Amino acid sequence: MKTYLDCFPCFLQQALNAVRFTTDDEALHEKVMHEVIKLALEMDPRQTPPEMGQIIHKLIRDMTGVADPYKEVKERFNRYALELAPRLRKIIEESQRPMETAVRLAIAGNIIDFGPKSSLRDAQVNEAIEHALTAELDPKEIDVFEKSINDANGILYIGDNAGEIVFDRLLIERLPRDKITFAVKSKPVINDATMADAVAVGLTELVRVIKNGGDAPGTILRNCSEEFKEIYDRSDAVIAKGQGNYETLSDENKNIFFLLKAKCPIIARHLEVDIGSIVIRRNHSSQGE
Amino acid sequence: MKTYLDCFPCFLQQALNAVRFTTDDEALHEKVMHEVIKLALEMDPRQTPPEMGQIIHKLIRDMTGVADPYKEVKERFNRYALELAPRLRKIIEESQRPMETAVRLAIAGNIIDFGPKSSLRDAQVNEAIEHALTAELDPKEIDVFEKSINDANGILYIGDNAGEIVFDRLLIERLPRDKITFAVKSKPVINDATMADAVAVGLTELVRVIKNGGDAPGTILRNCSEEFKEIYDRSDAVIAKGQGNYETLSDENKNIFFLLKAKCPIIARHLEVDIGSIVIRRNHSSQGE
Repeated sequence: MKTYLDCFPCFLQQALNAVRFTTDDEALHEKVMHEVIKLALEMDPRQTPPEMGQIIHKLIRDMTGVADPYKEVKERFNRYALELAPRLRKIIEESQRPMETAVRLAIAGNIIDFGPKSSLRDAQVNEAIEHALTAELDPKEIDVFEKSINDANGILYIGDNAGEIVFDRLLIERLPRDKITFAVKSKPVINDATMADAVAVGLTELVRVIKNGGDAPGTILRNCSEEFKEIYDRSDAVIAKGQGNYETLSDENKNIFFLLKAKCPIIARHLEVDIGSIVIRRNHSSQGE
Repeated sequence: MKTYLDCFPCFLQQALNAVRFTTDDEALHEKVMHEVIKLALEMDPRQTPPEMGQIIHKLIRDMTGVADPYKEVKERFNRYALELAPRLRKIIEESQRPMETAVRLAIAGNIIDFGPKSSLRDAQVNEAIEHALTAELDPKEIDVFEKSINDANGILYIGDNAGEIVFDRLLIERLPRDKITFAVKSKPVINDATMADAVAVGLTELVRVIKNGGDAPGTILRNCSEEFKEIYDRSDAVIAKGQGNYETLSDENKNIFFLLKAKCPIIARHLEVDIGSIVIRRNHSSQGE
């Protein structure tokens, strides 16, 4: 997905949220904003939004000297989601369609995203769970997903955020684990999950977990590690979580299932859904398969 | 009021809304946005937001070649408000506190503002009216307003938007008209009222109406005409409508009553009210008088 003109105000707002989140130094807020506006001026709109996000968040980390501003947030939401996990696992097990329920909850977990917003209360996570359990979700897409995953020889599961990966774990518990490789970011960006988060929530004990080689809030294939690209290439099904992965991979010619909450109006329009919707969407380029 | 860092994303969004409102030419949207980002880079944040607004909207008019993009919107809302006027006048007349009700409705009319938003349905105007009739409004401020207006020898009423000026008219009908001068913008900017609108809604038949000499979406005194400045200087009470006038005049040492709906979170915070509130606020610098 290209960068829309609507993304530019949002880049500035996200940068402002992020730098305020990172430091109280108002002079530094101003300096960062000045640099971000400069970047916006130079940006090629054919790039995907996460390419700008990557540069902005690196700039903030460099200018503030805080290497991992969302460290505590990530730890907190990992813990919180782990506390919820037994209850959610029970909901899945007692559900009439456990796979569908696990998918719904994996999507609900995508609410834990500090890109578009700068704060999140536990209550909002619970609202997202309640919403996801009953909201409209194309049953045909779920069937196609289930069949495609069962038929696959190799599955790449591209994670998104800390905390959210606990919800991913609940879905993975119902998938053919031996076929799955789970990918996290190599270095911190916003609250995206890194290897430390995968270890913290026990994902590493369940499936193979690799770093993707990057620190973009999405998957910029050309910047990913050789290891990641090799696994991506030979996976015949990919599960990609969240908006950033949709923005960076929606134009790929690959059997990808995007699982996300549409939190941004531009992405919602691109997906032709209402904002706030839960979405499972197979890649356009693989629709005919 | 200075420009906050939060205003920068908003400038970009407002510019995008405005250029899309003015033309469907997407290449031109992109060019305008590029220029606006450049302006944002050069902007002195000690300026007030309407100074940036003035430059942005002039840029859009110049780049699109459309001298008055909101002409039809202004005419439509003048007509719509004129249709509402008899019902609103009756509400005022039958009210237990007609002056207060007239003030409330004048504030409600401030919803007709195409700066922060790019569209407005008639239903939203009606909602704003219903809200304004019952929402919290400091009765002491109204008493102070009434007394100050009655005591004044000269009153300058600085209007804001087309359509809204019909609501202003209803308030003016209850004020000492011979003491009032009403000011409109000299040239079009967004949907701000100009002399054509004052004529269209019959304000010119009721009080003296002058142009302020400017085309900023607010009152930048140093850019106003000598005539305006002279009347401003000798008025001992000023009624200033809307956010733009608050942003540009809130630091003035003058007996100004700001009447507005707080539609922007930064202004709401500056006024210490919730967003969406109706506000009558006497200038800080004149509080002690």
